[in-house]
Amino acid sequence: MVQWVSYSTWLGLMGLLVALGLFFWIKRQPDGNDTMREIAGLVRTGAMAYLKKQYSTLAIFVAIVFVLLLWKLGFNTAVAFLFGSACSMLAGFAGMNASTTAAVRTSEAARSQGQSQALLVSFYGGSVMGLSVASLGLVGLGILYAIFGKDPATASVITGFSMGASSIALFARMGGGIYTKGADVGSDLVGKVEAGIPEDDPRNAGVIADLVGDNVGDIAGMGADIFESYVGAVVATIAVGATMALAPELEFLRAGYMATPLLIIMAGLVCSIVGVFSMNVLKKISPQTALRYSTFIAAGLLVVLSAIIVKLTGIRFGAFWAIIWGLLAGIAIGLVAEYYTSGKPVQKIADSSKTGPATVIISGMAYGMESVALPVVFICAAAYLGFLCAGIYGVAITAVGMLATVGVTMTVDAYGPAADNAGGITEMAGLGKEVREITDKLDALGNTTAAIGKGFAIGSAATTALAFFVAYTQAAGLSVINLTSPKVMVGALLGGVVPFLVAALTMRAVGNIAYDVVEEVRRQWREIPGIMEGKAKCDPASVVTITTAGALREMLLPGIIGVATPVVFGFIMGKEALGGLLLGATLAGVMLALFMANSGGAWDNAKKWIEAGNMGGKGSDAHKACVIGDTVGDPFKDTSGPSMNILIKLMSVISLIIAPLL
Amino acid sequence: MVQWVSYSTWLGLMGLLVALGLFFWIKRQPDGNDTMREIAGLVRTGAMAYLKKQYSTLAIFVAIVFVLLLWKLGFNTAVAFLFGSACSMLAGFAGMNASTTAAVRTSEAARSQGQSQALLVSFYGGSVMGLSVASLGLVGLGILYAIFGKDPATASVITGFSMGASSIALFARMGGGIYTKGADVGSDLVGKVEAGIPEDDPRNAGVIADLVGDNVGDIAGMGADIFESYVGAVVATIAVGATMALAPELEFLRAGYMATPLLIIMAGLVCSIVGVFSMNVLKKISPQTALRYSTFIAAGLLVVLSAIIVKLTGIRFGAFWAIIWGLLAGIAIGLVAEYYTSGKPVQKIADSSKTGPATVIISGMAYGMESVALPVVFICAAAYLGFLCAGIYGVAITAVGMLATVGVTMTVDAYGPAADNAGGITEMAGLGKEVREITDKLDALGNTTAAIGKGFAIGSAATTALAFFVAYTQAAGLSVINLTSPKVMVGALLGGVVPFLVAALTMRAVGNIAYDVVEEVRRQWREIPGIMEGKAKCDPASVVTITTAGALREMLLPGIIGVATPVVFGFIMGKEALGGLLLGATLAGVMLALFMANSGGAWDNAKKWIEAGNMGGKGSDAHKACVIGDTVGDPFKDTSGPSMNILIKLMSVISLIIAPLL
Repeated sequence: MVQWVSYSTWLGLMGLLVALGLFFWIKRQPDGNDTMREIAGLVRTGAMAYLKKQYSTLAIFVAIVFVLLLWKLGFNTAVAFLFGSACSMLAGFAGMNASTTAAVRTSEAARSQGQSQALLVSFYGGSVMGLSVASLGLVGLGILYAIFGKDPATASVITGFSMGASSIALFARMGGGIYTKGADVGSDLVGKVEAGIPEDDPRNAGVIADLVGDNVGDIAGMGADIFESYVGAVVATIAVGATMALAPELEFLRAGYMATPLLIIMAGLVCSIVGVFSMNVLKKISPQTALRYSTFIAAGLLVVLSAIIVKLTGIRFGAFWAIIWGLLAGIAIGLVAEYYTSGKPVQKIADSSKTGPATVIISGMAYGMESVALPVVFICAAAYLGFLCAGIYGVAITAVGMLATVGVTMTVDAYGPAADNAGGITEMAGLGKEVREITDKLDALGNTTAAIGKGFAIGSAATTALAFFVAYTQAAGLSVINLTSPKVMVGALLGGVVPFLVAALTMRAVGNIAYDVVEEVRRQWREIPGIMEGKAKCDPASVVTITTAGALREMLLPGIIGVATPVVFGFIMGKEALGGLLLGATLAGVMLALFMANSGGAWDNAKKWIEAGNMGGKGSDAHKACVIGDTVGDPFKDTSGPSMNILIKLMSVISLIIAPLL
Repeated sequence: MVQWVSYSTWLGLMGLLVALGLFFWIKRQPDGNDTMREIAGLVRTGAMAYLKKQYSTLAIFVAIVFVLLLWKLGFNTAVAFLFGSACSMLAGFAGMNASTTAAVRTSEAARSQGQSQALLVSFYGGSVMGLSVASLGLVGLGILYAIFGKDPATASVITGFSMGASSIALFARMGGGIYTKGADVGSDLVGKVEAGIPEDDPRNAGVIADLVGDNVGDIAGMGADIFESYVGAVVATIAVGATMALAPELEFLRAGYMATPLLIIMAGLVCSIVGVFSMNVLKKISPQTALRYSTFIAAGLLVVLSAIIVKLTGIRFGAFWAIIWGLLAGIAIGLVAEYYTSGKPVQKIADSSKTGPATVIISGMAYGMESVALPVVFICAAAYLGFLCAGIYGVAITAVGMLATVGVTMTVDAYGPAADNAGGITEMAGLGKEVREITDKLDALGNTTAAIGKGFAIGSAATTALAFFVAYTQAAGLSVINLTSPKVMVGALLGGVVPFLVAALTMRAVGNIAYDVVEEVRRQWREIPGIMEGKAKCDPASVVTITTAGALREMLLPGIIGVATPVVFGFIMGKEALGGLLLGATLAGVMLALFMANSGGAWDNAKKWIEAGNMGGKGSDAHKACVIGDTVGDPFKDTSGPSMNILIKLMSVISLIIAPLL
């Protein structure tokens, strides 16, 4: 069985071909009338301008880290790092490209062909992202494994690939999160609040930046985040497999332990492709059930294939159960997120708007804090059961189980922004009520899948961080990280500080960017005569440029904190204390991520619930109170919360990288 | 030197006599006119009614725990528990009594004798609480030490005393916090918002409950919290002294290690009395400087006495330095709290009200999250330096250093509510602008000292929890708590969940109580004709009863979570995993406590800053936005935040108690 791993690169390339095929299928779909094309073109240009700017800043960062790695850890790791960055960037680019292409065609499909075709177009739009993430990960890991994975002594080189993915995720998710909410809040403030013009009004130069932000944050950011988890889970498990203690008579199984994570994601890619194409049949049933079934088909198939793989590689069969625990935990965490952001809590929060905005905030925060409990219990249960079934290797491989079917999970998640943008285009192009009803339905469903996706992203980040933590202890040769040692105790407490600090900085960054947007839109109104009368066009590109530059500037400090803390602390206090730091950071990071994502999601939906006509509907006092909640929730759920995912993985992978130097 | 410890009970009794003397001195001061007496009488009656109801519920709880302890840990521990509860209750009662007595007399002193006398009366009002806490702790610990402290094998009995203190703190601080904010929010909602009558209007039956709440939360709650930390720090250090490994040739020093914490707090009480009476001289300078100097005098004196004590007991001299690190950390944490709740952040938050309430909330939360960093760094620095100077004993005794001068620290803190209430009485009794100016000045200062006090309470809770943690590892015979073991890892993560859950429940409880208050006030307006026309009096006592019962009901679930989690988890997962749970809970608890206290305090002061005439003053849009921030901050800073202090200490002391059973 183990030798099958040599096909991983080829399987990945095949997955990429499927993604490419789906992309060309989307391209061939009709893209509507001129107005629709124009709006779509603006968003597309803005998104690509953002990516270009981001990637050119990234190039400098990547070059610096490359030199540092070259100097300290040698050529191989440095190149692996470069390769990881390139794969993550490529996945982000492919996903953004497909999503912006699919949005306008979904809108057109809703107009000319009805709901099931619209669902199919937006779903396949998401699937390009999903399959790109899964396939590029497999290609990259496959190539590196073929070169370095045969020998446990060189396997640590592959960690460089994971660190490359983390670096891109830092920019795409943290920078992208700051960008998207800064543009959103800024254009709302200057347009709706200050000038009194409607949302999405073309006279507001910030509107395009805002639409671009949806793609930047929800597609490129989310994709990079999940790519990082996916790659990280595999790399951590390979690292554990390469370094864990085995009885001499079982040493021959080491190759199997190291190959299994790759074999599982190979199976996962196949399952995902089956899941994605099952939509061709499923599209006729209700969209919600269709999306759910496509995930379940992939998951069910993976269970069967995993059992076969684990059996044939001959490693402890408990590893199979560990994979199952991971898979189940991932689903359960998503369902909890769905409950807190679309279930009873949402109506309770809306209800508390009777006594004003303050009670909306208090109630939303209380639910957000409560929502921390169950996901953490599931994460702990999966890790602990994984351990009982297959030792520390089991802890690591639960993360692989959770992430193996990422091709379809990510597809469902990335479907949302495509449907969302399709709704916006339908509205702006004035395609009428019936078309709008279809896109609204798809969009509403997209909100649910987005909530599930966010929960899944946090859960997988936490599980991956734990896998990294285990890999770190192995790589650093730490059989004990002693909490009774004050160094470790202090490390844990200081580690807990980092997420709070990063959350504070990223939240504040949104305000700063919003201020930049307000200033720029005001300047255009002042200096370009005739915008307000519709005689002159505003310059959305300059807002995109300013917002992009601002987001990259604002992410500098929190980014440096994330990168430098483990390095500085590790070299001063030693590797055992660094282990404490990692656990403290993971703990606080996961809790804050869940709290912020779920509070934010619940506020958003409470506002939407009122807008649907409940409690007085739009414009009522209840609505105003919930709008305040929603505004507070924006940086919570789209900036600071998701930054936590990146932070905890980044800190762990850096520690794993520097472990041999400590 | 060690034998001096036998005087501790006597010294404590002497301290009590001083407190009693101060109380009678206050009683002898003139208490103003009839109106003032009437208002003061209502608050007093309400506060005592609250205490009575709380203590009678407590009696049931205490009885149950007593029986459990009797059954599992024997007569001695059970009686020590009972004794600890009694001392804490007595301290709370004395403090409330003195504070309500001092408030009206401060108001009268401001009217007839001017600022320096008013400062003296309110300061001495606070000092009754401060000296009672310090003296009762000393009396209780002294008696138990005399019986059980001679033999390391029986020293664990003293832990029962600390658990008694924790149980009362749970009710006083968590229940009191729910009470005070429930009454506050409820009476505001039904009076100001619904009926449109002014704040503190006598027709609103909730007003007295609100005033009672200030005493309940800020005096009895804070007192019980600090009493718990104070006793806990000493008990944990005794426990470490009794169980730590010593070279056989140094075994003779064990008595010294066990006695030193008591000797230090004996010295601390003397220093505090000196600090308190120095106010007789200091009262002529500016109140702020006077309060600060009284603390510094006590602290400076303690440095000298500690050096002598450590030298004469012959234990490692590093213990002296550990005491100093604790003392300094306590002061530094207070100053950080002062900065975040009265410094630049307050104006930045007020400034963000230009763009509405949402940005006020975001900005306040960002500062609150940021404010976590420095205090945790100070706590870690003190613990780690303590360790470097005197091993794990040093970690424990830093907490004693921080808390030894509690007599004066608590005096300064408890001065605030007395001055605050004096301001309320001055206003309601219409004593005129000049008198109001004096009480306003004292009240404003009280807000600063309250912020410092809250920071200190969190810092000391964290340090005490760490000391308990060290004592727990010793008592459980754990030389290693291995974070690489999945049990411990899972324990830490689950431990982190507990504070989030308790914060969520207590925040929600405030809303529930507020709802009860609204219903009851409405009922009175409906069923008692003539209240609104001033022809009939409303029934404030029934609101107090309902609020009290509600607060005790609402604290049940969070209380049970705090008490049961370590017991259940410890018995299922074992003592090593319980160690992980404790650290996780302490970590998350401290961070949430700091975040919530400082956000809340900053919002409060941002509102006050605008009310002082900045940015358009009262009634402006900026003011309205900040009022929303302040309302969100209320349960943050006075309910959920302070509950964290109790939670982390309670979980640790319970673990310490059950350690021998695991």
